[in-house]
Amino acid sequence: MNMIKVGIIGAGRIGKVHMTSISTRVKDAVIKTVADPFLNEETIAFAKSMGVEHTTKDYHEIINDPEIDAVLICSSTDTHSPISIEAIKAGKHVFCEKPIDHDVARIKEVMEALKGTGLKYQVGFNRRFDHNFEALQKAVAEGKVGKPEIIKITSRDPEPPSPEYVKVSGGMFLDMTIHDFDMVRFLAGCDATEVYVEAANLVDPAIGEAGDVDTAVITLKMENGAIAVIDNCRRAAYGYDQRAEVFGSEGMAAIDNDSQSLTKISNAQGVTGEKPLFFFLERYMDAYGKEVSEFIKAIVEGKDTPLGVEDGLKPVLMGLAAKKSLEEHRPVKISEIG
Amino acid sequence: MNMIKVGIIGAGRIGKVHMTSISTRVKDAVIKTVADPFLNEETIAFAKSMGVEHTTKDYHEIINDPEIDAVLICSSTDTHSPISIEAIKAGKHVFCEKPIDHDVARIKEVMEALKGTGLKYQVGFNRRFDHNFEALQKAVAEGKVGKPEIIKITSRDPEPPSPEYVKVSGGMFLDMTIHDFDMVRFLAGCDATEVYVEAANLVDPAIGEAGDVDTAVITLKMENGAIAVIDNCRRAAYGYDQRAEVFGSEGMAAIDNDSQSLTKISNAQGVTGEKPLFFFLERYMDAYGKEVSEFIKAIVEGKDTPLGVEDGLKPVLMGLAAKKSLEEHRPVKISEIG
Amino acid sequence: MNMIKVGIIGAGRIGKVHMTSISTRVKDAVIKTVADPFLNEETIAFAKSMGVEHTTKDYHEIINDPEIDAVLICSSTDTHSPISIEAIKAGKHVFCEKPIDHDVARIKEVMEALKGTGLKYQVGFNRRFDHNFEALQKAVAEGKVGKPEIIKITSRDPEPPSPEYVKVSGGMFLDMTIHDFDMVRFLAGCDATEVYVEAANLVDPAIGEAGDVDTAVITLKMENGAIAVIDNCRRAAYGYDQRAEVFGSEGMAAIDNDSQSLTKISNAQGVTGEKPLFFFLERYMDAYGKEVSEFIKAIVEGKDTPLGVEDGLKPVLMGLAAKKSLEEHRPVKISEIG
Amino acid sequence: MNMIKVGIIGAGRIGKVHMTSISTRVKDAVIKTVADPFLNEETIAFAKSMGVEHTTKDYHEIINDPEIDAVLICSSTDTHSPISIEAIKAGKHVFCEKPIDHDVARIKEVMEALKGTGLKYQVGFNRRFDHNFEALQKAVAEGKVGKPEIIKITSRDPEPPSPEYVKVSGGMFLDMTIHDFDMVRFLAGCDATEVYVEAANLVDPAIGEAGDVDTAVITLKMENGAIAVIDNCRRAAYGYDQRAEVFGSEGMAAIDNDSQSLTKISNAQGVTGEKPLFFFLERYMDAYGKEVSEFIKAIVEGKDTPLGVEDGLKPVLMGLAAKKSLEEHRPVKISEIG
Repeated sequence: MNMIKVGIIGAGRIGKVHMTSISTRVKDAVIKTVADPFLNEETIAFAKSMGVEHTTKDYHEIINDPEIDAVLICSSTDTHSPISIEAIKAGKHVFCEKPIDHDVARIKEVMEALKGTGLKYQVGFNRRFDHNFEALQKAVAEGKVGKPEIIKITSRDPEPPSPEYVKVSGGMFLDMTIHDFDMVRFLAGCDATEVYVEAANLVDPAIGEAGDVDTAVITLKMENGAIAVIDNCRRAAYGYDQRAEVFGSEGMAAIDNDSQSLTKISNAQGVTGEKPLFFFLERYMDAYGKEVSEFIKAIVEGKDTPLGVEDGLKPVLMGLAAKKSLEEHRPVKISEIG
Repeated sequence: MNMIKVGIIGAGRIGKVHMTSISTRVKDAVIKTVADPFLNEETIAFAKSMGVEHTTKDYHEIINDPEIDAVLICSSTDTHSPISIEAIKAGKHVFCEKPIDHDVARIKEVMEALKGTGLKYQVGFNRRFDHNFEALQKAVAEGKVGKPEIIKITSRDPEPPSPEYVKVSGGMFLDMTIHDFDMVRFLAGCDATEVYVEAANLVDPAIGEAGDVDTAVITLKMENGAIAVIDNCRRAAYGYDQRAEVFGSEGMAAIDNDSQSLTKISNAQGVTGEKPLFFFLERYMDAYGKEVSEFIKAIVEGKDTPLGVEDGLKPVLMGLAAKKSLEEHRPVKISEIG
Repeated sequence: MNMIKVGIIGAGRIGKVHMTSISTRVKDAVIKTVADPFLNEETIAFAKSMGVEHTTKDYHEIINDPEIDAVLICSSTDTHSPISIEAIKAGKHVFCEKPIDHDVARIKEVMEALKGTGLKYQVGFNRRFDHNFEALQKAVAEGKVGKPEIIKITSRDPEPPSPEYVKVSGGMFLDMTIHDFDMVRFLAGCDATEVYVEAANLVDPAIGEAGDVDTAVITLKMENGAIAVIDNCRRAAYGYDQRAEVFGSEGMAAIDNDSQSLTKISNAQGVTGEKPLFFFLERYMDAYGKEVSEFIKAIVEGKDTPLGVEDGLKPVLMGLAAKKSLEEHRPVKISEIG
Repeated sequence: MNMIKVGIIGAGRIGKVHMTSISTRVKDAVIKTVADPFLNEETIAFAKSMGVEHTTKDYHEIINDPEIDAVLICSSTDTHSPISIEAIKAGKHVFCEKPIDHDVARIKEVMEALKGTGLKYQVGFNRRFDHNFEALQKAVAEGKVGKPEIIKITSRDPEPPSPEYVKVSGGMFLDMTIHDFDMVRFLAGCDATEVYVEAANLVDPAIGEAGDVDTAVITLKMENGAIAVIDNCRRAAYGYDQRAEVFGSEGMAAIDNDSQSLTKISNAQGVTGEKPLFFFLERYMDAYGKEVSEFIKAIVEGKDTPLGVEDGLKPVLMGLAAKKSLEEHRPVKISEIG
């Protein structure tokens, strides 16, 4: 079998994660070229250590390379949809980091471009590939809790982003909660129909000044009748908090956070276990590897990717509805968006 | 020191719980009379086994007995406020099961009657006296989590009430969630300002036919800026689920359910611990004892009860706001009620 | 039904525990007399608060009182067997704190005295009545782990006794491990045949000077082929550690320590739960109540006590074998003792 | 920097584990040759998929290859010491699977051969590199529990080996417990001075017929005064049980088993978590990678390996002492061996 030749566009934090995954644990794929407009010595050295033969500042070298089968888009969010379209037009399979775009119309252009091409497209909602969320979803899908009735997701970051980042992030719902919107769909096995947001700026006044909130409780009505609730905060003193619970007619399934080890120290202060793994790179490294493996597998085996462009669109609709709910202080139907 | 002489009005399930507590573990109190309109042989025998000297069908024998210092009102909800007023007028201290009334005006009449009497009044929100909730509140009050930002309460019953009960219950928010409304106030250390309800009839169609919901997620804005969320269900396959979590600027405190023992069985199926204690009688027996002890102590030591008539009013306001939110499908301010 | 009239001999810490249990939670029994050679005002007041009508310095007032049905012996260890015999001769049922005696011959005299009297005799191995150990034993007895193969008991005290106490205690094996020897028999459902001890004086040199050890690992061969191991220490920085695990052909059952609440605090230091309950009074208060209830029930219902004099003898034999094993640094058969 | 060229001798289960580790996650090393006397198509294909350029049936092709810097000995136990010596003589660094030999004299020959060569030698006690055991040891070494007093290790396999394997295994103590002997040294930070064994054949009569035991409790005296206890069984219904606990003057540190996910299902049967990971390949895959990384790092950085030949000898001495203790039914000093 031939190895899939991959080009990676964007060599920032997440681009490097994918370089590492592909070079060390994704079978059937090899990275031919890495492109980054801010390419520097450090990145070139990193790429070399991962066995990448070619680096460039111009991503068109990837788009125009007839040898490259698939493109991973890890550049800034505003470039996701245009580069997606360029890559599709060049006949490449595309793995695109989330979100595809903040603008529904532009996501629909990507969908349009894909139509009839037979190319694979996958969106980077990595959490679906985490061993805990995977096991939780499996338990629910196998009926272990009966019919889902209440779905709860806790998602809190260890530390807030800079106000500069907040300004260009699209807001907490499109930047952070979007992962949880995807998770709700994954766990419920259906779409949301309505969103209500209660949110505040409690963590850092600079976030408020940047026009965003940092703490939220988001309630959703799901198509299957279940009620879902997400709670978010941009800062948790104890690290990255990523839990979920699905309650149904026959029971409940829940997952807890991973930690570096299961050591417990008992002393005069109590019985102390470790904090959760610090942040997404620590918690989800395996999941990043699995998602790209699945993308490559879909290409090799000619089957659907686990997360198509539609799955990229839905959480954006939910995020826009959440934004509207916050602004208008009322429940907003998903159908009001787009 | 003199023993406080107590009369118990209503000898149903909760009346018997208080008889047991007072006879076996409340110091400084003795039950003189138990009154119940449906008094039968079984109840008389039970009362005798608890050392109660006198039983009657007419609660006026308690109200009119000058030897009786304090009255516990455990009769049906609609009688709580009128009997409260009768007892106060007769100069008795009053412990009243929750809720005082479904009607705000009638609760205010009780408040009016109390004014200037110096009598003690306590409402039966037993969960505050549970060892787990007590420790959680203490941790929060001591600043262990910093400034509270997100408060989460899970409260699910093991099995739904009969449709007959549902019809006279005042609805889930005044009957079941009312405990959680009290708990939110206890944990947050302040009042709620706004409520939003997402609810459905998922458990038993008969509950829907009786005009009620059985599954809900309730979001609250608190005076201190925190956001609270309660999730309720009238049926949980694994028993009585009573958990809470307070997340704040410096950490999180959370409690889990009690079970009969901490036994864990590891076998080919997994590692299995026990279910939560079945229902409120199992989970809160100690808490029932402590709340009445505190009531008696307030009388003996001449200090305030831990839960005054005001604390009986607030959760009713929250429940009525929740009802309105469900009906009007919008966030409702507490100030819109009463 | 008549109430069983009880006399309590010895009003120290454990005598007061039994007074409290009987007065507040043991049905069918009432304390008539409490005797203690060091009777003082404080004890008289305590007894009165528990509804005891009579206190005395002379325990013969109990032995000679024809109205008293049953005696609880809570005096110093050296008086357990002689008072047992006196009480039996006076026709009283006897509940005797552990150990009956350090001398096998004197325990056999008690057995002799009991023969043919039809009187009930129970030894105070309270841990069998603890909700956790009870559930563990039940799981094993019901075959949940298959045939037992390895039994592990951890038993560590929060703080060491005084050297003065150590000198008269009979040594750690007869004073502390004796509870674990009983527990091994309870969990295995059979007797031990051989003991090997590895022990040391690590906690407090004064204990070594008093001729005792304070830290030990004790291995036992059981009649049913299982191997048991007990680890003991006279001091644990985190409180009273009382755990057990039974491993068998089909799985494992294990119990953990109880704590005051299940609160967990997550912060920058980790995720911290509470320490175990401090010591035996905190951990086993319920168990003390249950054991005396069972004793009274055996009298009332005319059935065997759950722990007869034989069950008092066996752990003493094990303790003496352990002592010999330590002295002679070799495995010692139980049959070598007595 | 040059890549370390590695030859792997023995391409069975553990040989393949090391092939995978080196090809996917060990930096600075590349496998040049894999040798196995039973080399077949499947193994050749596996090696190729791991990027190995050369496979052979004759391990001398590795020993005699001047380009190869380091050898991993993954062949049958009886060949470990002779191949070690051949490799050392050929100037290769050696990583040798445990045990180096069952015969102390032959291990000493390896030590002799190493002397003065400056070559690196590492023994494959993989568990030291497991994230849980690593964190436990670190906590102890940092003084988190004070002075160690009781060390407990539980080590149970999910299923027993075949009687054929048992016959050539050297017996449970040299085959299975040897890992725990190493772990005791790792956790205590010192050597054992004495061993006492209580063991039985409870799992499979065929193991007894093969002259071995399958269930054991092993007590050890440590140089630092601590008492250690290991419990072993060749079969656990719930999978691979690998736990440890260190109790000391200031507290206790303990680790639990890893499982595939942290999912907990609550239903009418209880609250069920997952079983431990099935066996050593599942539990220790990361640890295998880390141990070889450390070996390569020792070569590259010119420092000591974390586990020298001495660390290979000590557990064998402990295992032989354990054997003698079982045979002679008495505590055996380590100094009696070799």
